[in-house]
Amino acid sequence: MKIDSQRLRNDIETNAEFGALDVDGHGRTVLTGTEANRQVREYFVERLEDAGLDVRVDAVGTIVGRWTPETAAPDADAVAAGSHLDSVPEGGVFDGPLGVYAALEAVRAMQDAGIEPSRPVEVVSFTEEEGQRFADGLLGSSVAVGERSVEEALALQDGQTTLEDALETMGFRGEGRIDASEWDSWLELHVEQSKRLERADLPVGVVTTITGITHCHVEVFGEANHAGATPMDERTDALVAASEFVQDVERGADEIGETTVGTVGKLDVRPNATNVVPGAVEMGVDIRDVSYDAMNELVSLAQDSLDRLESERGVETGFVREFDVEPIVMSDRCRRAVHDAGDEADIELLDLHSGAAHDTMHIAKETDTAMLFARSRDGISHNPAEWTEWDDCAAATRILAGALASLAR
Amino acid sequence: MKIDSQRLRNDIETNAEFGALDVDGHGRTVLTGTEANRQVREYFVERLEDAGLDVRVDAVGTIVGRWTPETAAPDADAVAAGSHLDSVPEGGVFDGPLGVYAALEAVRAMQDAGIEPSRPVEVVSFTEEEGQRFADGLLGSSVAVGERSVEEALALQDGQTTLEDALETMGFRGEGRIDASEWDSWLELHVEQSKRLERADLPVGVVTTITGITHCHVEVFGEANHAGATPMDERTDALVAASEFVQDVERGADEIGETTVGTVGKLDVRPNATNVVPGAVEMGVDIRDVSYDAMNELVSLAQDSLDRLESERGVETGFVREFDVEPIVMSDRCRRAVHDAGDEADIELLDLHSGAAHDTMHIAKETDTAMLFARSRDGISHNPAEWTEWDDCAAATRILAGALASLAR
Repeated sequence: MKIDSQRLRNDIETNAEFGALDVDGHGRTVLTGTEANRQVREYFVERLEDAGLDVRVDAVGTIVGRWTPETAAPDADAVAAGSHLDSVPEGGVFDGPLGVYAALEAVRAMQDAGIEPSRPVEVVSFTEEEGQRFADGLLGSSVAVGERSVEEALALQDGQTTLEDALETMGFRGEGRIDASEWDSWLELHVEQSKRLERADLPVGVVTTITGITHCHVEVFGEANHAGATPMDERTDALVAASEFVQDVERGADEIGETTVGTVGKLDVRPNATNVVPGAVEMGVDIRDVSYDAMNELVSLAQDSLDRLESERGVETGFVREFDVEPIVMSDRCRRAVHDAGDEADIELLDLHSGAAHDTMHIAKETDTAMLFARSRDGISHNPAEWTEWDDCAAATRILAGALASLAR
Repeated sequence: MKIDSQRLRNDIETNAEFGALDVDGHGRTVLTGTEANRQVREYFVERLEDAGLDVRVDAVGTIVGRWTPETAAPDADAVAAGSHLDSVPEGGVFDGPLGVYAALEAVRAMQDAGIEPSRPVEVVSFTEEEGQRFADGLLGSSVAVGERSVEEALALQDGQTTLEDALETMGFRGEGRIDASEWDSWLELHVEQSKRLERADLPVGVVTTITGITHCHVEVFGEANHAGATPMDERTDALVAASEFVQDVERGADEIGETTVGTVGKLDVRPNATNVVPGAVEMGVDIRDVSYDAMNELVSLAQDSLDRLESERGVETGFVREFDVEPIVMSDRCRRAVHDAGDEADIELLDLHSGAAHDTMHIAKETDTAMLFARSRDGISHNPAEWTEWDDCAAATRILAGALASLAR
């Protein structure tokens, strides 16, 4: 079975024209409900139809193209693959579209090769994976696994309009709900967004585990005071205390394990004036690991750090673990299908974990899943400098096609 | 010579009604050009005229009431005293007005006591000492010493209007320029804004030196990256680096000397999202001391800290010393006049430095100056909780009156 790498490239390049930015690199901005989003959706539907797939759009705008070969039982659970077509503001052209168009190319390759699957194959684009307008992210897949109801999703606001209105304006407010529990299995190909494949000099990786994610909201309260009139020994400076916390989080993540990451990504000072001793600091902390125990250990270390700062620096602190998802292990069956496809194509694969969240995190709750990563240049993503070589796109798509064919057999 | 503490209190309390806030404590907001600012100015002019003083308003709205006793040579250089009537947003009722109305009360007390000065005495309220709308602060006094021209000052913008328009709207855009070099000497009474008098159990202090002030703008550039997909050892986290800098500034100030203070009061993170490794941090650093050498030492330590972070953490940094005023020593002659007045009133005075900036910093460049501090409850200022006991206001005003009388003799 051969894939047509030029056909794949044409699709990704055409898709990249919608919302394209006039910047160095290859940038695009495709937020839910915008004209660019309407364009990428219409082009995708056109390409699905060109390949003879039956197109369905669900109530939250997730698009599915279904191939039901003559050899397949029409009511058999489908094998599905895909990703997303939206982007972050000033994002890259592969993050999302590669997974969507690779899945379509895999179906076309199976058709061209006369493969005779016993299951239907579905090609999927989830609504707003990046979460830049209506939700925090993974919007379409949250509805597909019933974690968020259609009604809740449609009522989501961006401050001006609802998701429902935005979808209706584009003509992509469909009916019903794509239900991931009806899939036999799910595969997602995505750009790696890290440098491990680059360092291993390999084009494609297989995800073992998607890390869990904890977000903590941390507050440190000191006493705002005159920066000139308040001697050093009479201060309760919230920022100096918070800066110890920032370092404790880094040190903890360094020490706990190789796959542990801890980030204070957000920090706001009040009143934030050069001549006022900071009175309060708010922070957003991101903690991830493939081990939930390790994540809990770093959360404990962060809490210990705040306790220490309360006693040593006289600040008051607040800590809320406001978002928490446990690590998700990919299914053996699906990973094996990917590895077998790699062997068949004579492409060596690297087992690695995903530190980034993907729609697959949701889908894995309802069916067997695996993810493939394609090598990212310098590990850069969410940036017009994001790049994956066309040869690597093709290699990853070839393996995806092989794995899909074997799962659908 | 006796002061009328009830008359002083009435003036301060009436002044406090303009721009008064309905909050706990005694709060007011009086920004340049507002209705509250017009009211405090009109009431002040009325009180100056009631005491028989000749009122002059200069081009930038600074108000002077001049008492030329029969015993004084009309062309002799005047002895001047005063402060400001504007406030920070949600400020206190003594910061500024105490110094203005104490100076007026001092003149009234001299008049009542039949004192016969050989010099005219001027009571002054400078425009926008707090710098909350048109300038960074010390606006009126900067014009009075020629550091800023009348034209530059009038053209200052708040984003919507100019100082000139704001003054004209209030009816306080006068003519010419109050010239501090024409004053024989200058005294300013202000609330302490620290706890040294409280700790010493004394009502009044005499300022020896106003600390110098350096503001540095510091930048730290790392690499923004995915908080999940970027392992700890592949990061260049600008916030972790900046947090070391924050602590180095504190440590340096602690070590250099008792009067040294160093504050990172402002810190902004980019992109400031919980799930993104910080790519850049900007900071505002405030450094003060009575010794300019000590200030320079702390500036050097801050620069050394950035050099170390560049080599140890791979960040790039920027450092600009964007504002710099050397410490200002008060004149022996004026301080002696204040101490003599303390002895006469049998009130023990504490010598202390001012860590806060005052209009006197400017005036000291053109003539002999001294400052008196009145005890502040808990050292709180720029806050409705700011408070100075009426007895302490009276004690400080008595000494101010005595010192003015002796300087004008």
